[in-house]
Amino acid sequence: MRAVALFPDEPELRVIEKPKPTPENGEALIRTVAVGIDGSDRRIAAGEIGGDVPDGEDHLVIGHEAVGVVEEPNGTDLARGDVVAPLVRRPVGDGSRFAANGELDMAPPGSFHECGITGAHGYMSEFFTARPGYLVPIPESRAAYGFFVEPASLVEKALDQTEAARSGFDWRPSSAFVLGNGNLGLLALTRLETGDEFERTYCLGRRDRPDPTIDVIENVGGTYVDSRELSLDEFPAVHEPVDFAFETTGHPAHAVEAVDALAPNGVVTLQGIPGSSSTVEIDGGAFHTDLVVTNKAILGVVNARRSHFRAAAEWLAETPESVLDALVTGVYGPDEIDEAFADSAETIKTVVSFDR
Amino acid sequence: MRAVALFPDEPELRVIEKPKPTPENGEALIRTVAVGIDGSDRRIAAGEIGGDVPDGEDHLVIGHEAVGVVEEPNGTDLARGDVVAPLVRRPVGDGSRFAANGELDMAPPGSFHECGITGAHGYMSEFFTARPGYLVPIPESRAAYGFFVEPASLVEKALDQTEAARSGFDWRPSSAFVLGNGNLGLLALTRLETGDEFERTYCLGRRDRPDPTIDVIENVGGTYVDSRELSLDEFPAVHEPVDFAFETTGHPAHAVEAVDALAPNGVVTLQGIPGSSSTVEIDGGAFHTDLVVTNKAILGVVNARRSHFRAAAEWLAETPESVLDALVTGVYGPDEIDEAFADSAETIKTVVSFDR
Repeated sequence: MRAVALFPDEPELRVIEKPKPTPENGEALIRTVAVGIDGSDRRIAAGEIGGDVPDGEDHLVIGHEAVGVVEEPNGTDLARGDVVAPLVRRPVGDGSRFAANGELDMAPPGSFHECGITGAHGYMSEFFTARPGYLVPIPESRAAYGFFVEPASLVEKALDQTEAARSGFDWRPSSAFVLGNGNLGLLALTRLETGDEFERTYCLGRRDRPDPTIDVIENVGGTYVDSRELSLDEFPAVHEPVDFAFETTGHPAHAVEAVDALAPNGVVTLQGIPGSSSTVEIDGGAFHTDLVVTNKAILGVVNARRSHFRAAAEWLAETPESVLDALVTGVYGPDEIDEAFADSAETIKTVVSFDR
Repeated sequence: MRAVALFPDEPELRVIEKPKPTPENGEALIRTVAVGIDGSDRRIAAGEIGGDVPDGEDHLVIGHEAVGVVEEPNGTDLARGDVVAPLVRRPVGDGSRFAANGELDMAPPGSFHECGITGAHGYMSEFFTARPGYLVPIPESRAAYGFFVEPASLVEKALDQTEAARSGFDWRPSSAFVLGNGNLGLLALTRLETGDEFERTYCLGRRDRPDPTIDVIENVGGTYVDSRELSLDEFPAVHEPVDFAFETTGHPAHAVEAVDALAPNGVVTLQGIPGSSSTVEIDGGAFHTDLVVTNKAILGVVNARRSHFRAAAEWLAETPESVLDALVTGVYGPDEIDEAFADSAETIKTVVSFDR
């Protein structure tokens, strides 16, 4: 079968032929429909993050945002033809206690691999295998957009953990601010606008009009905020202090500066990962004081668990195809991998399709 | 009656005579037993924070850590002789929705006064009045230590909000690190050591032995950590990464640096308030990345609600007098206010007693 793989020390991804995998006992064989590409994939391909090959192998099959169809249930409770999206993490050895309780997203570093990211093959190949516990069902009507389940699961985790973090009092949020108009930021904004949690949403970018990301923001009902014209501490006076800020860019200063945009009792939830060390000068006194006297919180969130994937699949089922389609700016075959990984101001979500 | 009051623009507290208050309908009259002094009181007295006088008055009666005895129930459901500790916040006007639901500790700035801190008289007077909703009962056996209920309520709020913040997964903390060996830090360490939440505790200070605060730390079973010898990022290698760090000093850099001392999924909870602006240089990339990839959190907490005062009163009832007494380094009459407010390396908690 064809697969898209990273070889250590080679600068470019390669399309290779490798044997179709044989499912182990308890695993199903899945035929891949499509695999989305995100910023992490581009950083993996550039050698910036992850990229560890599985033990005893010379390459890593990339891709972690996948949708597929069950080809061989192989004795599992899945049925041939079921549409599924796979989870990303797998325990290493016995893993941690989080492997047993379905919260592998909270497991400490070293106790898991991430398929397509580090230590375990991903899904950008014609077939892959997985245990049913690492697969969530997707309605057949949304099979073509099933690669959105993994990134949407990150938004579901952020919401879930944010609500839990504010469960110690009667929190009634009404406004949300997504920092970043990349593919995750725009997906998050779309999720927040189509969900019931918030009445008003904002999205931070640094683009001139006309711009396709600004169009997405405004088409779903959000307000575009240009970071070149308005700093986060000026944001509340011009718009409103927000209850929830969701950081998707990994811009290092945001972890501190986003607190300035919050209403009392608000939360900054960080999902983007900075590329490198970076010295930032902050007013530590003001930052610390503001957190305390207005009961604010900062949460880091990474990865997502099965319940978040399920919530994402439910959201996908309820969301009109036209809304999802607005986020897809390119669908390529596996032999067009360079085009699929190319990034421009026009790029939102590109996808490698194995159905073409 | 005698009262200890701050007059705007005067450099020193004054003991004044003022009329014994007349309880309004629905209020009880309370005879004050004792009032504790904390770092906020010293900063109020020094003109650094708070100190706003009530509308139409020329002075602010200070003191917010009080215990008293009901002198006149005045038609409330209290009984003469009940021992009570008063809450600190009172709504301004109609207040916010938090005034109605008993969570005034989460109310936005401007919607409350703080008795003895800003906008409303405190309790350092022979009598005060309060509605029963702003009073919690204390067992008579602990009347002499009832001034600990208010600072202990801050620790209960920190624990409550921290547990809520981690309620989105199966958090199983075992270690806690109190930053600061001032009176709140030592009370917090004592509470954490006598409670069931953590198996191991640490307390940060910057003192040479012999020292009374180190004695308290070690006598309750905690481990003393000298900040001059060990930075927070070195702490995990020497001791262990901790699940909970409780910041009580207001040292501005701690809001960021304490994250380095945490285990994955850990929380830094900030209660201390910095005195001023302060430029801090941080590695924003490392700070941001660490929060995300290990699901860490930072929470600000301020003040406490009735349920936290009740939990503090329960803890007080269960805690041996000898443990509480170890924290009290001076008991003074209201005429010895200068001695009561004096601070030295020997000072932990000083108290103004109206029973002497």
